[in-house]
Amino acid sequence: MEGKRENDHSTVRIEVSAAAETGGPYPVLIRSGLLGELASLLRAHVRVHRWAIITDDIVEGLHGRTVADGIAGLGPAPLLISFPHGEASKTRELWGRLTDLMLESGIGRDGGVVALGGGVVGDLAGFVAATYMRGIPCVQVPTTTLAMIDAAVGGKTGVDLPAGKNLVGVMRQPRLVIMDPAVLGSLPDDVHRAGLAEAVKHAAVADEDYLAWIEREVDVILRRDPRALQALIRRSVEIKASLVAEDTLETGPRASLNFGHTIAHALEHVSGFAIAHGYAVAIGMVAEARLGEALGIAMAGTAARIERLLTRLGLPVHIPPATALAEVIAATRADKKSRAAHVRYALLERPGRAARSPDGQWTFAVSPAEALAAITGEASS
Amino acid sequence: MEGKRENDHSTVRIEVSAAAETGGPYPVLIRSGLLGELASLLRAHVRVHRWAIITDDIVEGLHGRTVADGIAGLGPAPLLISFPHGEASKTRELWGRLTDLMLESGIGRDGGVVALGGGVVGDLAGFVAATYMRGIPCVQVPTTTLAMIDAAVGGKTGVDLPAGKNLVGVMRQPRLVIMDPAVLGSLPDDVHRAGLAEAVKHAAVADEDYLAWIEREVDVILRRDPRALQALIRRSVEIKASLVAEDTLETGPRASLNFGHTIAHALEHVSGFAIAHGYAVAIGMVAEARLGEALGIAMAGTAARIERLLTRLGLPVHIPPATALAEVIAATRADKKSRAAHVRYALLERPGRAARSPDGQWTFAVSPAEALAAITGEASS
Repeated sequence: MEGKRENDHSTVRIEVSAAAETGGPYPVLIRSGLLGELASLLRAHVRVHRWAIITDDIVEGLHGRTVADGIAGLGPAPLLISFPHGEASKTRELWGRLTDLMLESGIGRDGGVVALGGGVVGDLAGFVAATYMRGIPCVQVPTTTLAMIDAAVGGKTGVDLPAGKNLVGVMRQPRLVIMDPAVLGSLPDDVHRAGLAEAVKHAAVADEDYLAWIEREVDVILRRDPRALQALIRRSVEIKASLVAEDTLETGPRASLNFGHTIAHALEHVSGFAIAHGYAVAIGMVAEARLGEALGIAMAGTAARIERLLTRLGLPVHIPPATALAEVIAATRADKKSRAAHVRYALLERPGRAARSPDGQWTFAVSPAEALAAITGEASS
Repeated sequence: MEGKRENDHSTVRIEVSAAAETGGPYPVLIRSGLLGELASLLRAHVRVHRWAIITDDIVEGLHGRTVADGIAGLGPAPLLISFPHGEASKTRELWGRLTDLMLESGIGRDGGVVALGGGVVGDLAGFVAATYMRGIPCVQVPTTTLAMIDAAVGGKTGVDLPAGKNLVGVMRQPRLVIMDPAVLGSLPDDVHRAGLAEAVKHAAVADEDYLAWIEREVDVILRRDPRALQALIRRSVEIKASLVAEDTLETGPRASLNFGHTIAHALEHVSGFAIAHGYAVAIGMVAEARLGEALGIAMAGTAARIERLLTRLGLPVHIPPATALAEVIAATRADKKSRAAHVRYALLERPGRAARSPDGQWTFAVSPAEALAAITGEASS
């Protein structure tokens, strides 16, 4: 892999044009080696008096020193704070603790936050930055496949509550996102695979050519070839950026990014977050593709094609056998997108295209019975 | 007072042109009797599926039923939540409890918040709305002189921490602000007077004609003549709106609204919030006007004129004798606007005009020694 990095020195730059009310546009930079160039990137893009680097214990061990030492020359020594890794840390309590630690260290309104880690770090540190003294700049430096492909772009920040995921937070864009595909080399294999689920989702809702490319390149993607990863991240970020642009409040096509996620969130909830997000999304996409077919919205064969690719990527495609399906369907109603007995699902029309209802909606009201039938497979039998 | 209300039936409407990134422009409506017309105002301006009315125990007793019954016809019965009145309620914990109560009641992303009360209610309920499922609409219905004159406009939301006031929060504009001067008739006298301190501040930093008007109208203002109150609120909101427009992040002239507040916040902190905000601001303005004179920035006589008017309004103008002055000065450094030994103060040039430094700044770096000298009166002796 190292040998290929020399072919790979042109930085990809994508402008994400977010709505002004969430903070406006910002650049995403993608290239192997950018983590080592953080100081010059921050100096060029975001001037703050002092940085707080927020990360988790695993990422701290891998990259904490590099990043802290790298940006030490920018001003007063950065504050490096880490917390136990995992979704269970995404709480109001930890948000409060991180805020308190920054206050105790004297970080002022002229400070900034570097969110160094996966999706949990990005959401939590992003929320800390968005609410610290009513908002200080945040730079997202995602270190997992999932966070690069999906979580670090779009401006969602927040924490989970016992009642559900992401129930408190704000939409607040980062000032800059820096993605270094080389850091994905140190990820455990299952974590890398889990992240690829969101790439399949981007392809499934928006770009059949991209879907076909992933199908062709499964092996190099799983081998973590840096050029393949840069291309993968680039296309996913482009798709997500185009969908979130002008639609930050999720009333329009951005809603199609929820494909797979209604079931996924319910599964995560019912499992007590024991199931990885990417795995839940893989299972959710197959279930919701099947639901689309059962409702006559998706082309026949849509679910099978998605399922085949996910299986080749080593991702689960079936709800774990011990799961109480009625409980999963009940949990979709706790999803924050719902308010009535019917729950709105983002569905496919075919592989590579999200479905749009005749009245222009990007989601579809589905009854608990229809949803249950689809996930038990009864509808397609 | 009732007899005069008939002279008073034209609603004042002020457009506050806030920066898009904090939520954009919104109208402020001012007229006696508007509280009874809430349903039609909400229907005309902000459509939501279900309202949560957040208030404190005192305001609930005075207006809770009226408001809840008034808007009952708009949809599902509104959720009425109250909490113990006072600054001590402005905590992360209560923010979390209010959020949980709304979730338990099934309020969804299509819900909204009516913040009914004084500044504490506005800040806390505004922060709940801004962070609930990443933001739902908030309508501010201030019920105190202070909140109408100052707190309900500008988009500041948040809570206090043990380390200081308003250390967490976001800038998020309300969708609508409704001010009914008739509700001020039920306020305790000291609460009404405390609110007038901010009106004096607006006049002192921005409009000598307004200052002269308040000086002439002291008696009718204290008598709570509804027409005088409508005029007072209108002028204060106009001044605040013009200063916060295009300057939501407080880098420009908005900073002059901090006049009196550096000392005021420190006094509140040192007193354990035993001193009312308006009282602290009155004391702070006299101290900071004197500081401006001592530094050769303010015209001689500035502090005396401010002090005279505040005294006529029944407001305190001296730091309570038992206060440890060094502690107050130390507490100014905990203020979130500071980062060095010097603390930046918003000062006057003369009554009716904020001072601007030669390099265009609206605040001035002041050493602890200079500040201490001014508040002990040594500098002017």
